[in-house]
Amino acid sequence: MRYHRIPDETIRRLPIYLRGLLSLSAESRHQVSSQGLAEFLGTNPWQIRKDFSYFGGFGKRGVGYDVGKLIKQINRILKLDVGHKAALVGVGNLGAAILSYPGFKTYGFDISAVFDINPKKIGKKINKITIENISKLGSLKRRKIDLGIIAVPGEAAQETVDALVKAGVKGILNFAPCYVTVPKRVKVITIDIALDLARLPYYM
Amino acid sequence: MRYHRIPDETIRRLPIYLRGLLSLSAESRHQVSSQGLAEFLGTNPWQIRKDFSYFGGFGKRGVGYDVGKLIKQINRILKLDVGHKAALVGVGNLGAAILSYPGFKTYGFDISAVFDINPKKIGKKINKITIENISKLGSLKRRKIDLGIIAVPGEAAQETVDALVKAGVKGILNFAPCYVTVPKRVKVITIDIALDLARLPYYM
Repeated sequence: MRYHRIPDETIRRLPIYLRGLLSLSAESRHQVSSQGLAEFLGTNPWQIRKDFSYFGGFGKRGVGYDVGKLIKQINRILKLDVGHKAALVGVGNLGAAILSYPGFKTYGFDISAVFDINPKKIGKKINKITIENISKLGSLKRRKIDLGIIAVPGEAAQETVDALVKAGVKGILNFAPCYVTVPKRVKVITIDIALDLARLPYYM
Repeated sequence: MRYHRIPDETIRRLPIYLRGLLSLSAESRHQVSSQGLAEFLGTNPWQIRKDFSYFGGFGKRGVGYDVGKLIKQINRILKLDVGHKAALVGVGNLGAAILSYPGFKTYGFDISAVFDINPKKIGKKINKITIENISKLGSLKRRKIDLGIIAVPGEAAQETVDALVKAGVKGILNFAPCYVTVPKRVKVITIDIALDLARLPYYM
């Protein structure tokens, strides 16, 4: 099911709520008010209520939201309930950092294949995964890998994206410091860590 | 000058607009409409007009925005016009990737000091910067470094933050996979790359 009317900005915030709810759940808290969740996350209760209203997620007055139910609901909306296999392309410093990042499992992601172009790296293991030749990307469809994570230099980003698209990947997380173009059926999210740093001085 | 009524969500988007405007400027485009900028960035023109309206940045009908002026204005609002020195703590894979990231200079950031706790790394150079002992963080104030970037393991994050706060840092970009607490006078932005991956499947 796809909830067509949910704004992108709400979709961007849902994983943040989800992470908060998972933390609360880990602390055995089964109910939370929008006020309580907002304080936990350092955000606004009205924003939370508005975002949840898009999928009918109203809490009960005086009781709040059922944490477990809300986790399930957000997981279903974000299509995280099915699990996703991802391929990482580029095993430089950034790629190695991504591979050792503990946060992906939280959302049901499994980085199950790693590719590089450097012959010295191909065949070696990193985090128990054997690094494959980038020319083997064609095997992704058969292996049911539908997500790509790109950690290659900027000048190699577009050709890497093209190869991933050709291999049938439907979503790409791009860490290369440049924009890339894809057919409409593929979704790319480009991460630019400098953007987050750029809004820090405003608050200082 | 601080524009108190600008919402956080607008502040979050200003660096994105700034990056787009800088690209346009590099292509020698001096005027752009909200429609043109929106297409360039893959966002909504009404959102851009609304965001710019907070600081009186109305374009001229039929002419659009003056790219150079808008860049200056956004830089001033975000306090990027003064330049900022940052210290990086933690030179593992992620720290090394951050150091070699080309995007920071775009916004006037200069990572001018690097610290680690590992005696094997201290004294060595990375990107022409000598890695210092983390015990030397006290020198930041004298060196006019007011931003900290944290790329340490989760279990070391809070003590690193505490040391940076003690050293007079006013803003922290936290890449450690956990939340940290700081006094109100300090602003922390925590980056969780899994959050961006978590909203990809929704669009697939």
